[in-house]
Formats: sequence, C-alpha cells, structure tokens
Amino acid sequence: MKPVKIGILGLGTVGCGTVSVLARNALEISRRAGREIRIAQASARDLRKKRACPMEGIQLVQDPYEVVRNPEIEVVVELIGGYEPARELVLEAIANGKHVVTANKALIAMYGNEIFAAAQKKGVMVAFEAAVAGGIPIIKAVREGLAGNRIEWMAGIINGTCNFILTEMRDKGADFADVLKEAQRLGYAETDPTFDVEGIDAAHKLTILAAIAFGIPLKFKQAYTEGISKLTRLDVQYAEKLGYRVKLLGIARRTNGGVELRVHPTLIPERRLIANVDGAMNAVLVKGDAVGPTMFYGAGAGAEPTASAVVADLVDVVRTLTADPNNRVPHLAFQPDALVDLPILPIEEVETSYYLRLHALDKPGVLAEVTRILADLGISIESILQKEPQAGEDSVPVIILTQRVKEKNMNEAIARIEKLSSIKAKVARIRLEHLNPDWK
Amino acid sequence: MKPVKIGILGLGTVGCGTVSVLARNALEISRRAGREIRIAQASARDLRKKRACPMEGIQLVQDPYEVVRNPEIEVVVELIGGYEPARELVLEAIANGKHVVTANKALIAMYGNEIFAAAQKKGVMVAFEAAVAGGIPIIKAVREGLAGNRIEWMAGIINGTCNFILTEMRDKGADFADVLKEAQRLGYAETDPTFDVEGIDAAHKLTILAAIAFGIPLKFKQAYTEGISKLTRLDVQYAEKLGYRVKLLGIARRTNGGVELRVHPTLIPERRLIANVDGAMNAVLVKGDAVGPTMFYGAGAGAEPTASAVVADLVDVVRTLTADPNNRVPHLAFQPDALVDLPILPIEEVETSYYLRLHALDKPGVLAEVTRILADLGISIESILQKEPQAGEDSVPVIILTQRVKEKNMNEAIARIEKLSSIKAKVARIRLEHLNPDWK
Repeated sequence: MKPVKIGILGLGTVGCGTVSVLARNALEISRRAGREIRIAQASARDLRKKRACPMEGIQLVQDPYEVVRNPEIEVVVELIGGYEPARELVLEAIANGKHVVTANKALIAMYGNEIFAAAQKKGVMVAFEAAVAGGIPIIKAVREGLAGNRIEWMAGIINGTCNFILTEMRDKGADFADVLKEAQRLGYAETDPTFDVEGIDAAHKLTILAAIAFGIPLKFKQAYTEGISKLTRLDVQYAEKLGYRVKLLGIARRTNGGVELRVHPTLIPERRLIANVDGAMNAVLVKGDAVGPTMFYGAGAGAEPTASAVVADLVDVVRTLTADPNNRVPHLAFQPDALVDLPILPIEEVETSYYLRLHALDKPGVLAEVTRILADLGISIESILQKEPQAGEDSVPVIILTQRVKEKNMNEAIARIEKLSSIKAKVARIRLEHLNPDWK
Repeated sequence: MKPVKIGILGLGTVGCGTVSVLARNALEISRRAGREIRIAQASARDLRKKRACPMEGIQLVQDPYEVVRNPEIEVVVELIGGYEPARELVLEAIANGKHVVTANKALIAMYGNEIFAAAQKKGVMVAFEAAVAGGIPIIKAVREGLAGNRIEWMAGIINGTCNFILTEMRDKGADFADVLKEAQRLGYAETDPTFDVEGIDAAHKLTILAAIAFGIPLKFKQAYTEGISKLTRLDVQYAEKLGYRVKLLGIARRTNGGVELRVHPTLIPERRLIANVDGAMNAVLVKGDAVGPTMFYGAGAGAEPTASAVVADLVDVVRTLTADPNNRVPHLAFQPDALVDLPILPIEEVETSYYLRLHALDKPGVLAEVTRILADLGISIESILQKEPQAGEDSVPVIILTQRVKEKNMNEAIARIEKLSSIKAKVARIRLEHLNPDWK
C-alpha cells in the first residue's frame, strides 16, 4: 500500500522525539501498520535551529497553517501545546478532512467537546493517547481494553513533576521549595511550574480519563484542583511514620450523588502498589466492576515516551482509515449520542478520610475539646498520635487520622478547632484514601 | 444498528462470567460498541445444570458444532479450553466465515500459526486478549498501545496460582506442598496442578506475548519451562534476607543470538514494583525502546476478570466489522507477511545471574575450592553469605550470588562443585534477574 503522509505541527521536545522514533523504528512500525508512515511536512517557529532529530525528506515550514491546508497530508500531528493557536489549527485540519493526533491535554480537556463534535461531523479521527500519562497506553486501556466494564473509579499519579518532588521530599526530608529548585535544574520542572505543582496539568488529564471512563462530556472547569505547593516536609514525614505515602492523586469516581473529579495531595497506605511509584513515573489505578483493580505504570512525560503514544495513535489511525466512521472507536470511548451528562459532585459533598495536624498547647483538656468538636460533627477518629513537646516549646503536634466524612463537615470542624484558645496555628489537613477495590 | 449475534462455546466459569458481564453491563457495552451484542446460542455439556448466570433469551445446545454452523451467528466465543475439540471448532467457525474470540492460551500458543493463517485467508478476526493475564489488557497494550516501539524485553508474573503459592511460602514460611494443598482448597489451584506449577501455563502465555512483541511466529515448543514445585521455603527465606523476592517469571528478550523465551523461578530485587505483586495477581513488565519500562497489573484469572477481556475483544470485533480486513489490527500485531522467524536461544546459551545454595563441610579450604571452580569458568561472584552451622551439624549452608554467566558454564560449575568431597548435597540454583531497563 502507498505511504500515509502526515504533517507535524511543532518540533519541540515531543515533536523531535516523534520524528526520531518514526525514523528509527520505521521498519517495526510499517511491519505493524501495513504501510509506511511518512512525514511530508513539519512546522516550527525557528527554521534555522539545529535539531537532534533526522529531518531528511521533511519539508520544514514556519507557518503551521500551511501544514493543515496541505492537500497531500492525511493526518496532522499537533505537538504545539497550549490552547491557541492549537485549537484553531486542529479545527481547521478537521474542516479540511484530516485526521488529527495530538498530545495536548490542555486542548482536549478544555475544548475537546467542540473538537470531537467537529470531527464527528467530518467523519475524521482525533486521537490523543499522548495527552494522558505520556507513554502509558491508558486511554486505549480504558476505552478499549476495559470496554466490558462499568468503570467505578480511577486514581492516578499523572503528573511526573509532582511525583518527583514528593519522592524527593520523602527520601531527603527536604522542603518543597528546595526540591522544586532541584527539579527545575534537572529539567523535571518548568521555569514557571504553576501548571504542574498546582495540579492543573493533572486536572486536565483526569478530566479526559473521567470522560472516557464514564461516558460523560469533558468538564475541566468543574474539576477540584489542589496542588502540592503548600505541603510541608513535616507532614510527609509524619505520614511516613504512620505507614502512608503522600501522592498527588487525580481521582474520578462514580457516586450516587454525582461524579467525583478531584486532584489533591493524598495519603495512601504504603503497602499499595501505587504508593511505591516513585520519581517522575506515572501510574493509574482503574477499578472496573468485572476486572477488579488494574494498574498501568510507565513514564508520564519525556520526548520518546510521549512519542511512543503519538506513534501508537498514528498506527491506529492508519489501520482504521478504511473503517466506516460509525464503526471506529468513538473519540470518548462511548458513542457521541450515548454520552450522559452526569453532574460533578462539589468538593464540599465529597467524602474522604483525613490526616490532620494540630499544634496544641501541652495542657490537660485540649484533646477533649478537639475530639468533642469532631464528635459533634459526626467525625469518627481512626487514630491519634501526640508527639512529645520540643524543648522550650509549649505546644505539641497532634496528628489525627479520621474515618470518612463529608468535606463540608470537616471544614466546619477545622473552623471550630482553629477558634480554640489552646490551638496555636492553622490546622494542616490532607485527604486520605485507602484505595480498597470497593472504596471502603 | 441491528444487534450482533454471537454464540458461546462452553458455559463453565469463564463462559458463565461472560454471560453475566454481557447481561449486567449491556447498556455500558452498547453505549461503547454502538450496537447491542446479543448471545443467540450457547453450548454446554450438561444442559440441565443450574447456572449462576442469566440464561434468558439464549438458546442452549449440547453440540458445539451447532453453534459454529449457525448461519445467524457472526462471532463465536470459544471458552471450552484445551487443544481439542477447541482447535477443530475454531477452524470450522473460521471456515464458516465467523469471527472468533477465545480465552484459550493453550490453543493459541500451540496452534495459533495454523489458526491465524486460516483466519487471514477468510478475512475474519481471531481475538485472544483473555488468553494472557486474564483481565489485564496486555495483548492490546503491546500490540497497539506500544506499536511505536521496538520491544526489547518483557518479564511477567503470568500465572496467578504460582504467585499465590510463592507469596504464601514467603509470608508464612511454609513449604510448597502445604501451600499447594491450601491453594487447592481455596480454588486457586486445580486438582491436577501440573499445568500451573510446572510453568506450562505461563509458557503458553509467554509464547503469545513474545510473538506479538517481536513479530515472530508462535513457538511454544521451544520455550524453556521450569516450574516452582522444587523450590524450598529455605531458599525463599534466604532470598528475602538478601533483599530479593522469588517469582515465577516468563521472560522474553531479544538478543543478538536469538530470542530468549523462558519461564522459571527468578530472584528479583524487592524494590522493583513487580516484586511487590502478591497473591493471585498478575503483572507484566514491558520495555520498549521509546517508552522505556512500563507495567500492567491486574487479576490474571477468575470468571469476571477473564470475561472482561472476552467482552473487550467482542467490542473490538464489533467495531471493526466494516473495516477492510487488510486494515484491521493483525492477529499477531505485525502483518502476516512481515513476521520474521527469529531463532529461539537454547537455555544453555542464556545469560543470567544466579543464586546458589551449597551445603559445605564446615572446615577450612572449602570456599577456596568452590570459588576456584567458579573463577575457572569465568563466573564472577557478587556476594557470599555463609551461615552458622546448626547445633550438631557438620555442614553449613553457603549462599552465593553471581554476576551474569551463560547457563552452560553454570551447569559445568555446579557439576564440578557437586563432585567436591566437602559438598554434601545437590547445589540449589535459582536464576536471578535485576530487571534494570537496560537489562544490565
């Protein structure tokens, strides 16, 4: 069969990685796809820049619109990132009848509904495996590999930067700010790390995972998003002593009241496999009603791991070119007319267990006051750990692990506790999940 | 669109599980597949048996050939297991132009080449996700999700019975025979456990994984297969003290001399994620050149986990019905004319590290003799651990960890060591793999 001609938008880290992988593994890839995948054209801002990837045979242009308008090109690979002009380029590629492969999680999480509707109308594919968890084929696993299941919940370490920082904070007993600097030096964190450390990147990915798991539209704006920048090494260490690890988890879960969609630091038992996913690696736990718990682990970022997912999408698109569009795998796993607009549960209504750290005056009766408040709000205590006072200090840290309680009750309890005269500082609070298969 | 009618061969554990999952998740499944999957007919040996799965609307017959000859049925699901009559039934279904979904690893590992050739000729699909690692979508992950990679190696815990037994031997310090009885009582092991505990089942699955990873024909007969029945609790405990876990691994790896295809007990460092996969769970580590190391974890057996994979295959087949057969995903991941018949490396040529346990007389010079023999055969020692003699015993256990060496050299070394007058028993030997991404 004749080669499929593709065009690449953006030759940064992932773009160059994709060019490299397509060149190096050309034989393996065409042995699988049944035809050659040939890069006809690529766009890049700086045409003169020296690139590490092999550019022979690729026409390099500065204007990405040239690529999406090139009649020779059947598949456009969008690797520019960000909202605009990526959105406009992808929509124009679709309007021109081209299939699209993208690694852009922000774009899909924010504008996926619009993009998929346009693609549906035109009968073209939009593939986005690389948008979530880098090289881990998690989109394919959930959308196709677990298609027989009612997915009940997912919990993922889906931001490598945060996981690297949390691993270092634990291993070295270091503070967030110091580890962040180290991560920036090593290239694990960007100069402006906000998207990563504040959980926004993870929320983009979680939004996409929830849509394909539950058959709901993409609802990024309703995701609860809390990052790791306020975590202290003290809490990471106390958690460890209690047998827990602190991870930034993206959690999506069906409940009777609605879908939970939340990203936040979470204590998880250290004996869980996912608690031992360290450094910049990613992992996603998926619980299906038939399959039970499954986990998918691998590199969540980087040039070639991400390229691995981009190329897998390319092979998929090439293989499916002749399928009746109605029989292709739907963009969001469920047929477009079968999406159900389940409500997203507000975070105040979400139930979790909690880790609390209080600084209390070291005098009788303080614990009685605190536990009274918790009891009044229906919060059961799992365990309490009171530390010895440091020399010269009149307050002691008290660690409390609670059972499940609605967030709004915990908010109220913390407000009341902080008003006690014996409590000397803001209460530190981290959600805790046991990640049992039945979420008990 | 009108429903797809399917027929099921065999209503045992997995058959009944499949019926249950298709019924319970009918809505989720048709929301994904775009059409209803309807079980028109099923065959079972005993028509009167009470079954736990909902049989409404399913015509039950005793003769499986009725199902594969039923002109109404588009997809045949083979869940009988074993070589025959499964092989004949599947071939007849194919000859009748039906697509096939099967959970039968023995069948695919042994007769896959013949079956795929017949299917290729007829332009029908044969899907077998459930044949390897139960509910884990590992076939799909390797065949499609990692299609951009040159797969370098895979190492999998792909037999839940063995993993359950090894976990219990470690946790309880119990002997193989006792744990096996317990596993049989709990239903984790069959009355005749040979296929599981001797590694044959794992070798079936490994054969399939290697074919789709490397693009080679299925070569079950050339797989090296060694089970866990000769492992002692002593070695499991010594391994643990040295920081290793003993797992039955299926390993497939490309080398310059040929493909390694081997199943055997293996010491692996306890800090590896896969070393912490316990009980009846399965996990497969896959190293691709672009993606790096990835891991896929989940239930490797059981009614509904296996049904999860069967139904995923059904959804795939339904989605792909209208695709040009040449553009469908090839049975063995690579196009049939692109398979390469790489040689399988004989086990004598395979290089691994080793754990050795010797029983040596507690007298000067013994270690010197042993290490001399190892040195003469070019075997480097990683560490030696000599235990204290037990009261009243004149021999001591000596544990030696070696660096990588060819199996034939180790065979020769062990033969020479066992001839020493100071060595009182057969040398216990377990292969050891570090599972570093670059296999160093």
